[in-house]
Amino acid sequence: MKRQKISVILMLGLVLFSQSGFGRTANQARREIQIPDILGYFTLKCDLHMHTVFSDGSVWPTVRVNEAWLEGLDALSITDHVEYQPHQDLLSTDLNQTYNQAKNLADDLGLILIRGGEITRSMPPGHLNAIFPEDINALKQGDWRSAIQAAIDQDAFLFWNHPGWNGQQKDGVARWYDEHTELLEKGWLKGIEVVNYDEYYPEAHQWCLDKNLTMLGNSDVHDPINLVWDFPGGEHRPMTLVFANEKSAEGIEKALQHQRTVVYYQDTLIGKAKFLDAIFSESIEILTPELTLQGKKRAILQIHNHSDISYALIQDGGLDNVSFPERVTLNAHKTIQLPIKGEGNIPRGRYLIHMPYRVSNLWIGPGEGLKVNIPVTVEYLLAE
Amino acid sequence: MKRQKISVILMLGLVLFSQSGFGRTANQARREIQIPDILGYFTLKCDLHMHTVFSDGSVWPTVRVNEAWLEGLDALSITDHVEYQPHQDLLSTDLNQTYNQAKNLADDLGLILIRGGEITRSMPPGHLNAIFPEDINALKQGDWRSAIQAAIDQDAFLFWNHPGWNGQQKDGVARWYDEHTELLEKGWLKGIEVVNYDEYYPEAHQWCLDKNLTMLGNSDVHDPINLVWDFPGGEHRPMTLVFANEKSAEGIEKALQHQRTVVYYQDTLIGKAKFLDAIFSESIEILTPELTLQGKKRAILQIHNHSDISYALIQDGGLDNVSFPERVTLNAHKTIQLPIKGEGNIPRGRYLIHMPYRVSNLWIGPGEGLKVNIPVTVEYLLAE
Amino acid sequence: MKRQKISVILMLGLVLFSQSGFGRTANQARREIQIPDILGYFTLKCDLHMHTVFSDGSVWPTVRVNEAWLEGLDALSITDHVEYQPHQDLLSTDLNQTYNQAKNLADDLGLILIRGGEITRSMPPGHLNAIFPEDINALKQGDWRSAIQAAIDQDAFLFWNHPGWNGQQKDGVARWYDEHTELLEKGWLKGIEVVNYDEYYPEAHQWCLDKNLTMLGNSDVHDPINLVWDFPGGEHRPMTLVFANEKSAEGIEKALQHQRTVVYYQDTLIGKAKFLDAIFSESIEILTPELTLQGKKRAILQIHNHSDISYALIQDGGLDNVSFPERVTLNAHKTIQLPIKGEGNIPRGRYLIHMPYRVSNLWIGPGEGLKVNIPVTVEYLLAE
Amino acid sequence: MKRQKISVILMLGLVLFSQSGFGRTANQARREIQIPDILGYFTLKCDLHMHTVFSDGSVWPTVRVNEAWLEGLDALSITDHVEYQPHQDLLSTDLNQTYNQAKNLADDLGLILIRGGEITRSMPPGHLNAIFPEDINALKQGDWRSAIQAAIDQDAFLFWNHPGWNGQQKDGVARWYDEHTELLEKGWLKGIEVVNYDEYYPEAHQWCLDKNLTMLGNSDVHDPINLVWDFPGGEHRPMTLVFANEKSAEGIEKALQHQRTVVYYQDTLIGKAKFLDAIFSESIEILTPELTLQGKKRAILQIHNHSDISYALIQDGGLDNVSFPERVTLNAHKTIQLPIKGEGNIPRGRYLIHMPYRVSNLWIGPGEGLKVNIPVTVEYLLAE
Repeated sequence: MKRQKISVILMLGLVLFSQSGFGRTANQARREIQIPDILGYFTLKCDLHMHTVFSDGSVWPTVRVNEAWLEGLDALSITDHVEYQPHQDLLSTDLNQTYNQAKNLADDLGLILIRGGEITRSMPPGHLNAIFPEDINALKQGDWRSAIQAAIDQDAFLFWNHPGWNGQQKDGVARWYDEHTELLEKGWLKGIEVVNYDEYYPEAHQWCLDKNLTMLGNSDVHDPINLVWDFPGGEHRPMTLVFANEKSAEGIEKALQHQRTVVYYQDTLIGKAKFLDAIFSESIEILTPELTLQGKKRAILQIHNHSDISYALIQDGGLDNVSFPERVTLNAHKTIQLPIKGEGNIPRGRYLIHMPYRVSNLWIGPGEGLKVNIPVTVEYLLAE
Repeated sequence: MKRQKISVILMLGLVLFSQSGFGRTANQARREIQIPDILGYFTLKCDLHMHTVFSDGSVWPTVRVNEAWLEGLDALSITDHVEYQPHQDLLSTDLNQTYNQAKNLADDLGLILIRGGEITRSMPPGHLNAIFPEDINALKQGDWRSAIQAAIDQDAFLFWNHPGWNGQQKDGVARWYDEHTELLEKGWLKGIEVVNYDEYYPEAHQWCLDKNLTMLGNSDVHDPINLVWDFPGGEHRPMTLVFANEKSAEGIEKALQHQRTVVYYQDTLIGKAKFLDAIFSESIEILTPELTLQGKKRAILQIHNHSDISYALIQDGGLDNVSFPERVTLNAHKTIQLPIKGEGNIPRGRYLIHMPYRVSNLWIGPGEGLKVNIPVTVEYLLAE
Repeated sequence: MKRQKISVILMLGLVLFSQSGFGRTANQARREIQIPDILGYFTLKCDLHMHTVFSDGSVWPTVRVNEAWLEGLDALSITDHVEYQPHQDLLSTDLNQTYNQAKNLADDLGLILIRGGEITRSMPPGHLNAIFPEDINALKQGDWRSAIQAAIDQDAFLFWNHPGWNGQQKDGVARWYDEHTELLEKGWLKGIEVVNYDEYYPEAHQWCLDKNLTMLGNSDVHDPINLVWDFPGGEHRPMTLVFANEKSAEGIEKALQHQRTVVYYQDTLIGKAKFLDAIFSESIEILTPELTLQGKKRAILQIHNHSDISYALIQDGGLDNVSFPERVTLNAHKTIQLPIKGEGNIPRGRYLIHMPYRVSNLWIGPGEGLKVNIPVTVEYLLAE
Repeated sequence: MKRQKISVILMLGLVLFSQSGFGRTANQARREIQIPDILGYFTLKCDLHMHTVFSDGSVWPTVRVNEAWLEGLDALSITDHVEYQPHQDLLSTDLNQTYNQAKNLADDLGLILIRGGEITRSMPPGHLNAIFPEDINALKQGDWRSAIQAAIDQDAFLFWNHPGWNGQQKDGVARWYDEHTELLEKGWLKGIEVVNYDEYYPEAHQWCLDKNLTMLGNSDVHDPINLVWDFPGGEHRPMTLVFANEKSAEGIEKALQHQRTVVYYQDTLIGKAKFLDAIFSESIEILTPELTLQGKKRAILQIHNHSDISYALIQDGGLDNVSFPERVTLNAHKTIQLPIKGEGNIPRGRYLIHMPYRVSNLWIGPGEGLKVNIPVTVEYLLAE
């Protein structure tokens, strides 16, 4: 009798699998994105800007659905360019095909597919996504105002794409034009991409805060996502977290209309303090909520982070009788040690302390990290 | 204004961290092992066999504690050889130092450290671990029966190590001797290592089933665990899952006395059906419990696996009116697609079906996988 | 003055890169496949079977070129189905577009692009690839003999695809039909896919040996390769290694005509002994060609493997005076230790010994590993 | 006949390996560090500062040898603290044991083991390593001058460790004291650690340039290296590259005496321009040394990097008639695309151009990247 049976049998399992007759993609697995639901809402992971062969992308619409499923998205909108179809000599220019070709697979996989198109004009006003309209072909219009009007007539949610893209702003700085004021005052422009692909636009971030616009982050992917993407961190595309009261296109639309979003970009979240604070609180768990400090001996606070985000904390003010690390990273899905030391002559007793930190990768404004407090109950004893 | 601020600031955070003055290991992070609690017990992750410089290992006892914490263990026993100290010319031979040197760090980190020693004799009876005795030095005795008696006198839990180790059995086959019958009949021998390091012993597995002995799986690591280990799968050492009613040495002892263990070895669990079945059930979640089948169109059942174990399922019997994959792997922490097809003329209606599978890496006996049923409610419609 | 400058500046470099105005795929990097040139030939890495939107694939032809470049291929043939264009309602059915759309990019990247098409018929004769013909549209013919004739008229190299594919052979067993004898006797059939996607066909392997046909291994990929591929080993698609006297389409054609190929499949090479032996010899380097053996003390032979293939060696016969490991894996791009021990009373002196092994993942026939000898010069000394 | 035999047989090979009777670490593999030999010297990879249980480390000396072999080092010096043995109650304080316990294994594995000890004093002069002396016990002296004298009397090479360590400089800034001037003027101090563990000291870097001292980078590791190390980049410890005319302790000593070193730290090399320039030139290969530019069409220069270092290039001045990327990373062991465009009205002809870059991770001074030129021969044609 030999010992290696387990491995052999497992291996057979793996290799034989492809013979099951259910096709060659059946052994694909979805990686769920671990960011908690907050404030009574579902946290839906959405990418609302991408392309296919029906404009200047290089994949069939079904690829976008399969990619979205594998990467843990809840919803997607494929937004081919309304005014730009470089494959038109070989391929239909019916812009509704993008959605039609993808719909069955999205239904089979339980993904929310949202109709959309990209109104593609020179700056100003630049590129704008219109999502939710029934007929994208209607957006083919001579002047940009008519194109946007056709979208609004179909109750589209309209947002401005990559305002600092160097294809339209050589220095990479986003600029606000009178045309954007016009769109804003008409109540047409509802959001801006604060993040597009691998770019972050601090100006757009500030405009969203100042003008109460919805913040979006999208991939704008053209090629197969694994082919083009040099993920910083390697694990996810940029996306918009949408806080919806139901898992549906309607739930997403309502949330977008009410600015209930956070942008997930590399290892950073960008959004309003109330959302970021809720995500942080729901993510971490203090495993040792009570510690004993004796003399100058250190005690170790252990914190587990249930989310995909590795929170980078920087001390934001000290405490009188206790020292704690200037910097600490709460690694995603890991437990870390946060050592604490009492500093000498403290009266015996039991105290609840809050260690003040800023989270440098939770952005409530350009360059401004969220303030948090890490609580711990400390029992001070005398030194031995 | 530039766009790359996030990354720069994050990078500063990471690099500056080491200046915090809390030492160079502060940025270590623990990977919690995700295997669910079951049947009202805590599932404690334990390694009850390892070595240090105090016998023929190559690390100081504190290393074993740090390793255990980083790898997500709840409890460990460092069991240096009672009869073998190759470093004796340079190092103390006080066998209680193994525990004493490790205890403070284990307490600081909240790990359960269990006293232990390895009685190291030629076969029979071979090597046996005695854990829980107060004084390991007392086990230094001339003959092996006296050594074991000294352990039993201190209420040790005694188990037989690596019964098929090729250092004592050239062909790697475990053999049962009269001496083991003697130990069993005296009520001294309570368990056997079914797994040691990278070896599995099917004979020992069967003995545990036949004689109601506790199954153990341990690392028996001598060098730094990352240095020697060629993890198949790369993620965890072999260990004993102990189902305890409290997180303490007492809880572990009681569970070991009552055979409440499962061995975690590579991507396989080995143990009694009731434990394996509970772990499987608590691990998986049917995300789409209701499906519609229309004609011969496939529908997709989605299953999420919350555990670290990738369950490998093989069809164990068919169903009359529905076909489903012969093999499917429920990847750890992933969601997979399990496509289902109706096979033609089925009466319309709503049915609860159970797809029969065997899990080839949940072993209820040597070579015998656990039977499970995957439930799904199906609505049959007529073909369009 | 601070210490973390290096990292900050590097990070800026990485993030800023995407602003260079040279497009978003510029930071892609190619992984060269490390398998040595042999016997005076270039070892060209070729995939000669794949699909695009112009038949039932899901990507534009340029994607196949970018993928091939990134994965280290030297040559590719995109072989859309001649008889099957599911996107025909929306897309041109001109079969030469597959090549035409990909050609410019292939030229820019220095890849050899070979025209091709897949004649797609029921079994027999099944699916056959015709590569090198000028006009693929000419292969659209009513009966399969006319289609093949049209390919042969254009000097196509014809090979039989996936002979054991379960879409045409339910049990996965490849079968030889009279029609294949006909094709062989006419001199039309020149090769067979021994490997397709994740399948290996031992029957086809034997036919190639018996009938002197060219062995091929191809991906037959339909979706983006990273999306569908569950690489065993994770690093490369199946491919055909072609031993060519020049890096050109002509060089490849000539090599295919003369059966100068090896199939690279998972971590295995399949082909004639002379090619496999040459690859093995060119891959490994004995770093310590001379060893001293004294008494029964072990000495350590160190071997470096310069190739991507991890060779798995199994002892194939012993030696009189020296013992050496039963099994050893020469890990890709690593150096390993192969411990050797003298066995007692050996006359002093200097010997050249050859340790006989079989390489279990270099297949000279179905299930038959290549024999190799590992040489080492040994100086025997007396025990101290 | 089934298809999956290859995988099964391979798996058997892997699992069975551990039964070979040659011990449990036999399947370890060494990763050779790929940095080229230069200027007629061997580039030896050395770590000259580390600890064991014989001072305040946590591993037996053999562990340091095994780690060094696995990580691709050529030479190591284990330098336990002369004045600090926290395990002295249990362990011998004979400081030569560090070397003696490791020597046999180093010889078996072909590694160069250099005797050494760390003279461990408060600042000034701080900690200094003395390597090469025969008897480390002789360095146990009351005052630091006597300790150093005892090292020098044995022809030690003396270097200053971690001059900015926050255990001795709270702000992390290295400071030069009169005592260092004294050591320098006596000709005793020969080098400084510019890098220690994860810290880089720009002040020390400058001192080495100004005073012609040897630059060193060492791990100073105390725990098992995989346990403590949070490798930025994940692949190697900090080390000193020594350019030696022979692979021996003597070769290393001579090179150290003549400042022939470069520090390898994270993804950065630190040293004199002549060494860095040689390493860069030997690492990269222009795969397409001749390009054709036609009109404004881009051409693609392909560069392969044979080394482990990913070189980060930043444009350092433009060229009149051609544009090329502002930033490009030459990824380790990869081939990258460097797109080039002609800018309009260029006279037809053939030119050799040099694209000026700075390599931001090859440091010839604090914050100062090496200047390099990427050559390419360009054939200008007229636009079509």
